[in-house]
Amino acid sequence: MIANFIQQNPTKLIFGKQQIKQLKNLVQPYKRILLVYGGGSIKQNGVYDDVMKQLKGKEVMEYAGIQPNPRVQSAKEAIQIIKENDIDFILAVGGGSVIDCVKLISAGVYYDGNPWDIVTKKVEPSNALPFGTVLTLSATGSEMNCGSVITNEKTQEKLAWGSSLVYPQFSILDPCYTYSVSKGQTINGIVDTISHLIEQYINQEHNPLNDVRIEGIIKTVMQYSHKVLKNPKNYEARSVLMLASTIALNHSLSWGTKNDWGGHDIEHAISAIHDIAHGVGLSIVMPNFLKLHAKKNTKRIKQLMVHIFELNDTSFNDYDLAMMGCDKLQAYFKEIGAITTLKEVDITNISKIAKLAYKHTVGSVYPLSYEEIYEVLKMAK
Amino acid sequence: MIANFIQQNPTKLIFGKQQIKQLKNLVQPYKRILLVYGGGSIKQNGVYDDVMKQLKGKEVMEYAGIQPNPRVQSAKEAIQIIKENDIDFILAVGGGSVIDCVKLISAGVYYDGNPWDIVTKKVEPSNALPFGTVLTLSATGSEMNCGSVITNEKTQEKLAWGSSLVYPQFSILDPCYTYSVSKGQTINGIVDTISHLIEQYINQEHNPLNDVRIEGIIKTVMQYSHKVLKNPKNYEARSVLMLASTIALNHSLSWGTKNDWGGHDIEHAISAIHDIAHGVGLSIVMPNFLKLHAKKNTKRIKQLMVHIFELNDTSFNDYDLAMMGCDKLQAYFKEIGAITTLKEVDITNISKIAKLAYKHTVGSVYPLSYEEIYEVLKMAK
Repeated sequence: MIANFIQQNPTKLIFGKQQIKQLKNLVQPYKRILLVYGGGSIKQNGVYDDVMKQLKGKEVMEYAGIQPNPRVQSAKEAIQIIKENDIDFILAVGGGSVIDCVKLISAGVYYDGNPWDIVTKKVEPSNALPFGTVLTLSATGSEMNCGSVITNEKTQEKLAWGSSLVYPQFSILDPCYTYSVSKGQTINGIVDTISHLIEQYINQEHNPLNDVRIEGIIKTVMQYSHKVLKNPKNYEARSVLMLASTIALNHSLSWGTKNDWGGHDIEHAISAIHDIAHGVGLSIVMPNFLKLHAKKNTKRIKQLMVHIFELNDTSFNDYDLAMMGCDKLQAYFKEIGAITTLKEVDITNISKIAKLAYKHTVGSVYPLSYEEIYEVLKMAK
Repeated sequence: MIANFIQQNPTKLIFGKQQIKQLKNLVQPYKRILLVYGGGSIKQNGVYDDVMKQLKGKEVMEYAGIQPNPRVQSAKEAIQIIKENDIDFILAVGGGSVIDCVKLISAGVYYDGNPWDIVTKKVEPSNALPFGTVLTLSATGSEMNCGSVITNEKTQEKLAWGSSLVYPQFSILDPCYTYSVSKGQTINGIVDTISHLIEQYINQEHNPLNDVRIEGIIKTVMQYSHKVLKNPKNYEARSVLMLASTIALNHSLSWGTKNDWGGHDIEHAISAIHDIAHGVGLSIVMPNFLKLHAKKNTKRIKQLMVHIFELNDTSFNDYDLAMMGCDKLQAYFKEIGAITTLKEVDITNISKIAKLAYKHTVGSVYPLSYEEIYEVLKMAK
């Protein structure tokens, strides 16, 4: 049965070539803007200049250096700047890490304690400073949702939180801004998008309208991923990856379902300890996580695999088809150049990871035991 | 290539059993509410009582009797009531006709002239009174978009208009509220939903992410339509039809495409003259409209048909596959009990209809000549 749900997504999506031109009007109501970005690639690829041109006439301050797994410490520093300078709008320019961090900054401005309290859900945000985004990486979907993942280096934790207060006001998606994304990061983004789609397929309260959309989008992403990797400046293919990553996590594919997210829970434990990219962790974890679920949730995994890989051979049983699909997913990841084993990133301490993961629930719908988490990691060796 | 687009859909969707309980909170900020509904079926099926219970403590006025093809005259009358009684919120309870009419009422309150000027685009709405909806019919998708279709009896015109000011603030979708919908209206709703999906497939600037989602949703609607017609109180099947009709026209499937809508243009001419239900007009027009496009747009129609009907026989050429699919669509409509010929509704004056249709553009992307419109109608005889 499809479960009751409430959904409202107020983000204005602005897609296409040179849509940065809309920015001037979008920030018109604001005076003092904090520009937040990452490692500075936007200064090399021209995005920084494009943005600054649109912000002419505004007081602009900058906070740069947001890291791939964004830290609570960065949020603290940016909040300080906002409070001291009476900033009234934040502009996130970057990928999911920058946007996720800006979400915490936005809510943290109205909380006097440690913003980590918001991430751990010790406190509920009461208000948030408005912000918009200029997306430069197709991956997390953070540009059109109200979720965020933050790392605490001290406690070695990487946790997800969310609040309806932190939807971006707008997100500008120009596929050309992703032309210069490196091959590795493009691959990570593809893996991330596909993983988000798959995680929403493992659920309670199935909604067949979600299923068919998820299956179709996964197939399309797989198809266009090859085109992008062949030609990074293929506009159509970059467009498909950009929009797919946005749809994959804008809540439109989880209407009336409760989702598991166990694969992400395991990945977060890996990258909390090892600081590998989220996409790398996912391409290692997901096929093996699904193999575990092929035992627990055979029909469901089989249905997904049969549809995305068009497995027609009826001489196999459900479990075999499900496992065959998991192998095909892993093979696809390898084919596009993704990392699929812990060995490739020199990670051997799987019991340490399993222990950290097990500290929090792994899988909201089908919680895994310590032994099951360990089994997934062992298969991923 | 996927075209530039901007999208923002602020409607809060509230789906599920007994979600009417949310209504009290949703209307909390308002004092004087105009309740707008249709022929009074809501008084028989309990929806009226459920709504009134939630509105206790408010000043409530009513405007009833909105007809299936809503008239500009109804909007005029309701606007008068709103102005005289200082109404600050409108609640539409019904299907697409009621909601479409409320959209014109909502915008018309702030325009002193004839609201028909808004429909003909002579004037742009400057403001709109806030409104919400309680949906009782799965069909038009009006509950989560900013479009509206209004009929002018005097001029025998039926025209579509829209404005970003007239998104519903919220829409409450309880599938149980559609249990008592008649078989005929259920069939019309199914046809309407499928037609909306197909119309968005005939476009410029193809977006493969739209294509796969549209194909998947059409297949799912076809599958669940049989379940609903067998058992009108099948909660899951009613849920699928309700959510599918909403997704079918909430703009999420037209990201970056320019759509044709030629089938609707022809249907509007039929029902402007003959006052048949929109869904009836569509089941007559769509298969024949697609047959015309099988000539003009062979590859596109073939792609759609191959995917929704799983046509695998490679011995046929593209045109044959496209035509085969059109026949299958017509056969499906017949199978669920939909009307598929003009004869069945005693319509013979096809040149009068063709002339009226040709007065406005038929097909925004591939405009049809008078002869082509006539040909579609002739095939529909």
